[in-house]
Amino acid sequence: MHRSRLAGFIIDCERPNLDAAARFWSEALGLPQLGRDGPTYEKLDASARDLHVEVQAVEHRSRVHLDIETDDQEAEVARLEALGARRIGLVQSWWVMEAPTGQRFCVVRSDSWEGKAGINTWP
Amino acid sequence: MHRSRLAGFIIDCERPNLDAAARFWSEALGLPQLGRDGPTYEKLDASARDLHVEVQAVEHRSRVHLDIETDDQEAEVARLEALGARRIGLVQSWWVMEAPTGQRFCVVRSDSWEGKAGINTWP
Repeated sequence: MHRSRLAGFIIDCERPNLDAAARFWSEALGLPQLGRDGPTYEKLDASARDLHVEVQAVEHRSRVHLDIETDDQEAEVARLEALGARRIGLVQSWWVMEAPTGQRFCVVRSDSWEGKAGINTWP
Repeated sequence: MHRSRLAGFIIDCERPNLDAAARFWSEALGLPQLGRDGPTYEKLDASARDLHVEVQAVEHRSRVHLDIETDDQEAEVARLEALGARRIGLVQSWWVMEAPTGQRFCVVRSDSWEGKAGINTWP
């Protein structure tokens, strides 16, 4: 048995001024800026929506990618592979995967599940 | 005064088998399928997360795009333009816009605000 759910999304911006990019998305979505999370990330406060949202500076084309959080990354990645997704690579602590429909997404580890909605439990 | 908030996101899939694409994303995210919403959309039930999520068949490259909902589209589009976004075009009832960081997103009309979290009120 393991758990997973949609954690939120990362707004990937190609070679941005990260301060300006985070300011735009903060104001566009009405989500306050929470400051830098390392050199390439800026967190937005989406706690009122029970979501994890960050703006990221990237080298590839701008996009939005989804994050799935789980208490067992290996089991969750295997579950997603069985559905047709494939592993792209392990980056820091998360698995980058590609959906059969082409979108990249990440599988991140979470140890905090208290009070979270929409948790799925998989056999 | 008008209101807006993050409505959710649309998972755009390039020339997919829409049934298979919706099935993958439904199972990957643990969001039940709600059936077709016109010929090119399939809705997922993200009500437990207070989000609107659909899988869409598109002709362009696969991506994920965000939707902002508002009770005044003209005021919201003007607010977003002032932040640096630009209008791409009106499609059916929603405005397609492009962020200064390059991502496309949509501004959709909503008349239902009861019980929704994270609503922003703009002067």
